[in-house]
Amino acid sequence: MSKNVKSILVALLLITKVTQAQQRDSIVIKQVFQEIFTNGQSYSNLHYLCKEIGARISGSPSAEKAIQWAFQKLKETRADSVWLQPVMVPHWQRGDKEEAYMILQNKKIKLAICALGNSVGTPVNGIKAGVIEVKNFEELRAKSNESVRGKIVFFSRPFPDTVLFGGVAYGMTVNQRSMGPIEAAKKGAIGVIVRSMTHAHDHFPHTGATQYKDSFPSIPACAISTADASILSSALQKEAQLEVYFKQNCQMLPEVESYNVVAEIKGSEKPAEIVALGAHIDSWDIGEGAHDDGTGVVQCIETIRTFKSLGIQPKRTIRVVLFINEENGLKGGLKYAEIAEKNKEKHLAAIETDAGGFMPRHIGFAMPKEQLFKYKKWENLLAPYGVQTIDENGGGADIGPLKKQGALIIGFHPDGQKYFDYHHTENDVFEHVNKRELQFGSVVLTGLLYLISENGLY
Amino acid sequence: MSKNVKSILVALLLITKVTQAQQRDSIVIKQVFQEIFTNGQSYSNLHYLCKEIGARISGSPSAEKAIQWAFQKLKETRADSVWLQPVMVPHWQRGDKEEAYMILQNKKIKLAICALGNSVGTPVNGIKAGVIEVKNFEELRAKSNESVRGKIVFFSRPFPDTVLFGGVAYGMTVNQRSMGPIEAAKKGAIGVIVRSMTHAHDHFPHTGATQYKDSFPSIPACAISTADASILSSALQKEAQLEVYFKQNCQMLPEVESYNVVAEIKGSEKPAEIVALGAHIDSWDIGEGAHDDGTGVVQCIETIRTFKSLGIQPKRTIRVVLFINEENGLKGGLKYAEIAEKNKEKHLAAIETDAGGFMPRHIGFAMPKEQLFKYKKWENLLAPYGVQTIDENGGGADIGPLKKQGALIIGFHPDGQKYFDYHHTENDVFEHVNKRELQFGSVVLTGLLYLISENGLY
Repeated sequence: MSKNVKSILVALLLITKVTQAQQRDSIVIKQVFQEIFTNGQSYSNLHYLCKEIGARISGSPSAEKAIQWAFQKLKETRADSVWLQPVMVPHWQRGDKEEAYMILQNKKIKLAICALGNSVGTPVNGIKAGVIEVKNFEELRAKSNESVRGKIVFFSRPFPDTVLFGGVAYGMTVNQRSMGPIEAAKKGAIGVIVRSMTHAHDHFPHTGATQYKDSFPSIPACAISTADASILSSALQKEAQLEVYFKQNCQMLPEVESYNVVAEIKGSEKPAEIVALGAHIDSWDIGEGAHDDGTGVVQCIETIRTFKSLGIQPKRTIRVVLFINEENGLKGGLKYAEIAEKNKEKHLAAIETDAGGFMPRHIGFAMPKEQLFKYKKWENLLAPYGVQTIDENGGGADIGPLKKQGALIIGFHPDGQKYFDYHHTENDVFEHVNKRELQFGSVVLTGLLYLISENGLY
Repeated sequence: MSKNVKSILVALLLITKVTQAQQRDSIVIKQVFQEIFTNGQSYSNLHYLCKEIGARISGSPSAEKAIQWAFQKLKETRADSVWLQPVMVPHWQRGDKEEAYMILQNKKIKLAICALGNSVGTPVNGIKAGVIEVKNFEELRAKSNESVRGKIVFFSRPFPDTVLFGGVAYGMTVNQRSMGPIEAAKKGAIGVIVRSMTHAHDHFPHTGATQYKDSFPSIPACAISTADASILSSALQKEAQLEVYFKQNCQMLPEVESYNVVAEIKGSEKPAEIVALGAHIDSWDIGEGAHDDGTGVVQCIETIRTFKSLGIQPKRTIRVVLFINEENGLKGGLKYAEIAEKNKEKHLAAIETDAGGFMPRHIGFAMPKEQLFKYKKWENLLAPYGVQTIDENGGGADIGPLKKQGALIIGFHPDGQKYFDYHHTENDVFEHVNKRELQFGSVVLTGLLYLISENGLY
């Protein structure tokens, strides 16, 4: 056989092998789809998590219940091992239902508010003060200290309409919530009201984490519904001197021991290489934490169930992590990375599902855009189940700390137009999750875990 | 200049021209996005159509109101011309709220039903009879006439879970509804109950058109909610002889004159070439016809408004058609095509938006798959607004008749997992439409009209 003929044959063999591998991958992912849509448990698990356990803020008894339940559910999947990873978490408590009103033309008009997470309470009788409305920190800084002192600062910058993704709109406005109390306290304000982080125009206030700096007073901060934010803005146009009253008796309690829940299936060929998928088991203390992040939790459980149920033996180790305390401290994510580093574990990739149980849309690989072409075939394999692109927008709060250990950080991005309609509200409930959309998410995540564990990264 | 250099220059010039054209198209579509997300009227128009006019079955006073309202709205867009196209339509009336129960172990258990569209009523006192449950026509045909005679046939084939698209599941089950009464009457049945056409498991019965054949008796037919279909099936397992009662006093009234609403912007370069976009102005008589097809109607109006508002002068004629009677007769679509043929109009393409106001997903061009590569650049131009693929699955009930006149038939397919949750029910209401998803649909449709009118078809 001539050398030329030989190299042609070798090339043909290689092409055949690659094609066969892709065909095999395509068939496995189809089996995953059929298993999940025939025997799937994610929707009934979500029902239990939302309706029997409900809201589960870090440190609360219901967070503990959720952890024990998830541990049990993962055991039931027959994962090779399931364990709890202890971690100290903050324990913030909302206390009584908040109250607020504005006084316009001597009439009290109720406002729908809720305390921001981590906020201090007001004095027992609440606070009442004039209001300084600003759209951003620059506007606030330009005011004299005197004009702000003793007032309530009202941050009213809305979600911009003309951005494509809710997550981007969130990124453009959320500093009002996370840093607003620090900026307002610097100027001598005694309280903060923040317009809710959403495109929706309705009556649900959206909570979410805020923070303080030791060098400035910790002042009480709350979110106001978008509908009431508009009402307050209009009222201030009419009567700039009007006063707002609000009362909240939330407080930060001592730290509590809690847990990340971890489960894994050992890889048969490269067990030391870990492909992780994470969601967060805690939620805010209002609503049911359905889209944020109950759906992620049940999808994680479903991936392990599906591997086991179909008898797929992954080549690399598949690990599922249900992080505690994503919402107001990230202690779970930090602890997991700390232990991984101490144990010299090698995370090849870490995927996060924390953007709702909507129809899959994009997957973000945190890598230079020009390298993405290598994953075009994966995009094609996952396209029937909703994946439009694998793009460069990888990320995730809980998995972020694994980046410096060399893990490829992967964000799962379902269709995001409605996520912030429910996010951090009383309205984030089971009823807003569609069974099939949730299941498609499970298919894509299981498929992605499979593809990485089978093929590694290119 | 040598001949070679010249041809290189010509080639470069061509490439530059093509690139420039694509850049221009991309900029125009971005302007469309910004206009719709800044000044859009589709959501407020939908609110009016759903809440002030509401359900609007062909021939009803509210259908007439919707037609006059849409005519006025299109006038307000400053379209070059707006007109009404008379057409005779059937006028079916539901009458009183239907009643149904099964008698199990001597107890009456209520069942949630609604008459199928076009169905005859029952006798004044309803019908009560034993039930023959079948999954399909083959199963029914295999039964002896004697065993079916005098009975109610219960068609209970569910939407299959393991298909990717709701529309496909619908196609696999809807013959029970559309042809069930004919098949049942052939065997001597006196009534028909059909499991609702949906993946959802809930208490809403789904109406929809059924039909009769003159050679067989017209027997009353109704839909039963999926939850109650399961209950009835279980009950029949326990007590095969149980009887079901149902009563409905719907009837078909004489035909009524109604209208398609048509508006156009004349093309500046090829006015004789028409690019049409259609939706249907009628709806079923329950719910508000929000996703079916209020969203399509307001998107059609929005496209014209956007062209005019941005001052885009299309090269070819853009025409919007709001068809009457899609739901129970298709008289509007047939009339429109008939007149187009008589007037020797040339429809280059016809697009239909009748699959809900959800996030855009696929666009179907009814052409051989291997020609689709020519539209890859359009796919890329529309991708930011949600278009995953331009595929070969073109189609549309109202525009279908234009196919034999040479029009390219184009179906607009938003994400379809939830459409059949609401379709043809009391639950198809404004509240289930998301403003931004609706607007993305308007962007894609306006962009597509623009691309075809600007570039023609390849």
